[in-house]
Amino acid sequence: MERIPILKLGDVLIVTIQVDLEDQSVLALQEDLSDMVVSTGAHGVIIDITAVDIVDSFIGRVLATIAGVARMLDAQTVVVGMRPAVAITLVELGLSLGGVRTALNLEKGIALLDHVWDPAR
Amino acid sequence: MERIPILKLGDVLIVTIQVDLEDQSVLALQEDLSDMVVSTGAHGVIIDITAVDIVDSFIGRVLATIAGVARMLDAQTVVVGMRPAVAITLVELGLSLGGVRTALNLEKGIALLDHVWDPAR
Repeated sequence: MERIPILKLGDVLIVTIQVDLEDQSVLALQEDLSDMVVSTGAHGVIIDITAVDIVDSFIGRVLATIAGVARMLDAQTVVVGMRPAVAITLVELGLSLGGVRTALNLEKGIALLDHVWDPAR
Repeated sequence: MERIPILKLGDVLIVTIQVDLEDQSVLALQEDLSDMVVSTGAHGVIIDITAVDIVDSFIGRVLATIAGVARMLDAQTVVVGMRPAVAITLVELGLSLGGVRTALNLEKGIALLDHVWDPAR
């Protein structure tokens, strides 16, 4: 079970982070995710971090990188399920998660993507 | 990150199994899931096992138990993302996953739940 599964729902991809992210799994996730954005033509990526208790600058960078890559591929990234303690740590670390939108939960994340994404553009 | 996160989407709960299930995490998942079915009034539970390479009779029983508990609480369970190799193993082990419906992926699982569930009953 070394790869983090990516769920597809309409044109949104959903990833739930449950395991401690290490260099190897992060690289695999980035690769899988960008492949899947391209192959499915997804317009949004939702990363659920409900299960993440502790964040450090590494996870902060990972999220920002994933969002950056997705943006290149014309998909928006929304991080959902952030715990209050995680938000506090991120601010204290001075990590603003530039370019990453956040929403309280999966439903709000999907609503945000629907709102942001304009099929007519 | 000892607890498996449960995502809510409308009246469906989504669980992605990414870690090796051990007694402790299974008990926690069953408890969290049944609590959440009750608190949200969910009518469906989707368990994604895309990341599960190997199944044994333990996982088979876990899935059947979760489905049984959910049914008591008036929710249907659908297992999605089963790999061909896993299906073969399950059949070879003689595990029929009684009471558990399966669908190819998340989208089909949600469609199945919509189809099965009749709000007017």
